[in-house]
Amino acid sequence: MKEEEIIPAKDLSKFVNNVFLAMNCSPKDAELSTNVLLSADLRGIDSHGVARLSGYVRLWEAKRINTKPAIKTIYETPSTGVIDGDQGLGLVVAPHAMRLAIDKANKCGTGWVAVKNSNHFGIAGYHAMLALEHDMIGMAMTNASPLVAPTFSTERLLGTNPICVAIPADSQPAFVADFATTTAANGKLEILQRKSKQAPIGWIQDKEGASSTNPHELKDGGALIPLGSDREHGSHKGFCLGAWVDIFSAVLSGANYGPWVPPFVSFLAPPADPVGEGIGHFVGAMRVDAFRPVSEFKQHMDQWINRFRSAKTVAGESSVIIPGDPERESEAVRLKEGIPINEKVVDDLKILAEKFSITFPK
Amino acid sequence: MKEEEIIPAKDLSKFVNNVFLAMNCSPKDAELSTNVLLSADLRGIDSHGVARLSGYVRLWEAKRINTKPAIKTIYETPSTGVIDGDQGLGLVVAPHAMRLAIDKANKCGTGWVAVKNSNHFGIAGYHAMLALEHDMIGMAMTNASPLVAPTFSTERLLGTNPICVAIPADSQPAFVADFATTTAANGKLEILQRKSKQAPIGWIQDKEGASSTNPHELKDGGALIPLGSDREHGSHKGFCLGAWVDIFSAVLSGANYGPWVPPFVSFLAPPADPVGEGIGHFVGAMRVDAFRPVSEFKQHMDQWINRFRSAKTVAGESSVIIPGDPERESEAVRLKEGIPINEKVVDDLKILAEKFSITFPK
Repeated sequence: MKEEEIIPAKDLSKFVNNVFLAMNCSPKDAELSTNVLLSADLRGIDSHGVARLSGYVRLWEAKRINTKPAIKTIYETPSTGVIDGDQGLGLVVAPHAMRLAIDKANKCGTGWVAVKNSNHFGIAGYHAMLALEHDMIGMAMTNASPLVAPTFSTERLLGTNPICVAIPADSQPAFVADFATTTAANGKLEILQRKSKQAPIGWIQDKEGASSTNPHELKDGGALIPLGSDREHGSHKGFCLGAWVDIFSAVLSGANYGPWVPPFVSFLAPPADPVGEGIGHFVGAMRVDAFRPVSEFKQHMDQWINRFRSAKTVAGESSVIIPGDPERESEAVRLKEGIPINEKVVDDLKILAEKFSITFPK
Repeated sequence: MKEEEIIPAKDLSKFVNNVFLAMNCSPKDAELSTNVLLSADLRGIDSHGVARLSGYVRLWEAKRINTKPAIKTIYETPSTGVIDGDQGLGLVVAPHAMRLAIDKANKCGTGWVAVKNSNHFGIAGYHAMLALEHDMIGMAMTNASPLVAPTFSTERLLGTNPICVAIPADSQPAFVADFATTTAANGKLEILQRKSKQAPIGWIQDKEGASSTNPHELKDGGALIPLGSDREHGSHKGFCLGAWVDIFSAVLSGANYGPWVPPFVSFLAPPADPVGEGIGHFVGAMRVDAFRPVSEFKQHMDQWINRFRSAKTVAGESSVIIPGDPERESEAVRLKEGIPINEKVVDDLKILAEKFSITFPK
């Protein structure tokens, strides 16, 4: 049996768009959601692309996602805003928030928008990178279902809470750091599960908080571990990062935080005692020329990138990897050669095709 | 021989203030610098307090620190500013920048200030926490002398580049996350050196990039490692964090970045081909009520903190540590019982006392 199927990006995109249309998204929202989801598959972040599509559908069927949201700005100042996502797809709500942040940055230098009552927003990178074409620095973060135990905790109280910072350069491609604030993202566990492999020490703990290498440990009360792996190697700093994302995304906006964040899966009910609405995001845009002339900044970014890329390396490695390089290279290859989709994900997508009477790409 | 001497905070403060006065600081700047430096010693971050005082003096003697700086705002928009620190003490320049950020936040919701031509600013926490009394969230970061090798690099291209995020709560103390973006801060190596102990695997690499446990390795071309320790445990994420701090602090402001950051020690000359001026900081302030009512926000912060503090713990640990707790507890004890100063640091301070004919506290 093949492990994966290669599907041309264009065909996959058309299929995904049809699924969002079948979920009653407006044509514009379907197109946007498709772009966000496909950008994950193209950039090689397979866990956040079409692999999530059936999850969105099930939450929509469970009436936990509203595909006709009335997204509202409920509060604002010249440089800030708060958005109520009306239970919409995060894939639609987050770009909306980012547009507001960019608009505010245009007017007063920077814009910062907290979002409540949203859902999973795909990859943080898509949203942060929206700022780049405006010669702005973009930031995006989101909280997520609790899968992570803070240092010394046996309870899962945080999501993998990613942060993205996207910074424009000149002749060099943009610096795009997009990472979960855990040692390993959940998608990496899924890969190990499919391949029946063990995880390295330092990624997972069992329900008592002891180190574990079993990638299925989370089903038995285990947890992912904050970046740093253990106290001696700075896991308290990874906890700081995840907590920061949680507070900016949810306590500032009025969303659920910590263990109250509703799960992304339809078979788990949201907590009965919510402390806010939906999940939360936090996005920002800073105009480069609110600090120094764009051309000057970009030339120095090129120099920064060139210097780091040409650093002397440890034996066996050809260069230091600039944040954003691997994703951009993946995108170039996959746009040309097609996107490899895991067979289990293909099966999932075929079920959706049947459910909605949509043709699945051959 | 005693390993340390306990000195009452008040006496130490008076001594430090006299040293700054002897360096020709204005009485106001001497008082501020003393407060910033002492706050590190009080909060238990011994590596950033009076242990650095002789370093500041030597850089001043080498004319690399200007104690009568004309600090200038060289560019601004409603929510941003850029400050030229005129080679001043970072201890003075950073609070100045933070006041500008707070002022801007008062007017338009948030304020973000990049700083060039500055020097070592002490602990990031002092500056970020200035926002708290205004019911604002404070942020502070700085780049620093290159001691850290990015993932796969054998060259030291980044400083330990700390970040602080300070968030006010209600009846709970503020959430204050203040951390170097490396697995271990340089101060932890200094402790191991003094005690002739080995470092854990994952903190340091040798000049070829191989793992090392020798806390003196940096003297022989070795490097500190970004948070995460190795690629498999996410050191590329720690590199992203350190790079982010470097770019915000220096590429936005026009300071030196990466390997061009001037060393904090007077016996090493700054690079002959600077790409900017001095070292850089980046500080920010966000008015809580630019997002939601302060009382509502603070009540949720209390709930967040209480929930995390009361999490079930692994055997042997009494509770999850909320960021800022250990430093606040240290401060309470040391204010009352005095500050333990390492004997080598005491010797250093006595040399300063003699140099400037100042009485050293008995």
